[in-house]
Amino acid sequence: MPYMSIMPAVLVGSTVKGRPNYMTAAWATVACMVPPMICVAVNKVRFTAQGIIENKTFSLNIPSVNQVVETDHCGLVSGAQEDKSAVFQSYYGRLKTAPLAKECPVNIECRLFTSVDCGSHMLHIGEVVEIHADKSCVTDGKPDIAKINPVIYAQAAYFGVGKEAGKAFSTGKQYGKK
Amino acid sequence: MPYMSIMPAVLVGSTVKGRPNYMTAAWATVACMVPPMICVAVNKVRFTAQGIIENKTFSLNIPSVNQVVETDHCGLVSGAQEDKSAVFQSYYGRLKTAPLAKECPVNIECRLFTSVDCGSHMLHIGEVVEIHADKSCVTDGKPDIAKINPVIYAQAAYFGVGKEAGKAFSTGKQYGKK
Repeated sequence: MPYMSIMPAVLVGSTVKGRPNYMTAAWATVACMVPPMICVAVNKVRFTAQGIIENKTFSLNIPSVNQVVETDHCGLVSGAQEDKSAVFQSYYGRLKTAPLAKECPVNIECRLFTSVDCGSHMLHIGEVVEIHADKSCVTDGKPDIAKINPVIYAQAAYFGVGKEAGKAFSTGKQYGKK
Repeated sequence: MPYMSIMPAVLVGSTVKGRPNYMTAAWATVACMVPPMICVAVNKVRFTAQGIIENKTFSLNIPSVNQVVETDHCGLVSGAQEDKSAVFQSYYGRLKTAPLAKECPVNIECRLFTSVDCGSHMLHIGEVVEIHADKSCVTDGKPDIAKINPVIYAQAAYFGVGKEAGKAFSTGKQYGKK
């Protein structure tokens, strides 16, 4: 398994065989600033893979630590075997085939930009069409990590976020001044 | 700025103009299982971008929370303005143009698979050639998060890892049993 220190646990929303489906993923990050893009690696054999390729849309839904049971459930069970459309209440934004999980504090709607065939996995790069954040998780108009309490994935376990260790573009100014 | 709940703070190592250079990045994740691949988004204007494109190699180095000053420094300062080759001691594995930062507990050597032009950023996908982990940070032959103490990046700040919230492929078995 390729190593990455820590990763975000997310739920990939897609429409497969006419119904909403959510798959747990951790191999996701930002791909571009302008235009805003994100990417997620999905095994080609996954039920979700069909939906992304067919509709050219998907969503990333950010669960909170108190949704760790639902989050892990969506990674244990395939939509091919079991209907996962009721694990979360789905709603839709601008894209009619990118289901958004209402219970997750943040939902990111994506239109597929391109898919890169890497081997076992396709790296799906999506342009961000809209970001929806629950009002209770927003501070000054932006998603707030302290309120969202997102799930970190590493070493086959889930973790919460720990103590702040410094501000970016600031802490580094101490370099060489010790 | 595209939203992503949490991201790993990493140092992208490359050879630019004949010397090792380290750039702070957070837009990195795993891209494929077989063959093992990772990806990192780098702004096209960065000094690092030249090195990756030219040599078709790079490294990802995973700093520990106690290296947050050095980590942030490499994000504040461009290699075009300042020689960053002495921020870390560089060593080399199989690839002679992918410098590895000795002080970082984990170093990942990558050979460029492909670069996707997304707009402001190129998403560089690299095949993992070798993973080097400091002996003091390994348990049962694998990098250990408790020993590495990796840096999480979110909302322009760095964080440590918090409490474990459950085991993956296990916690979800409680679903529907409440």
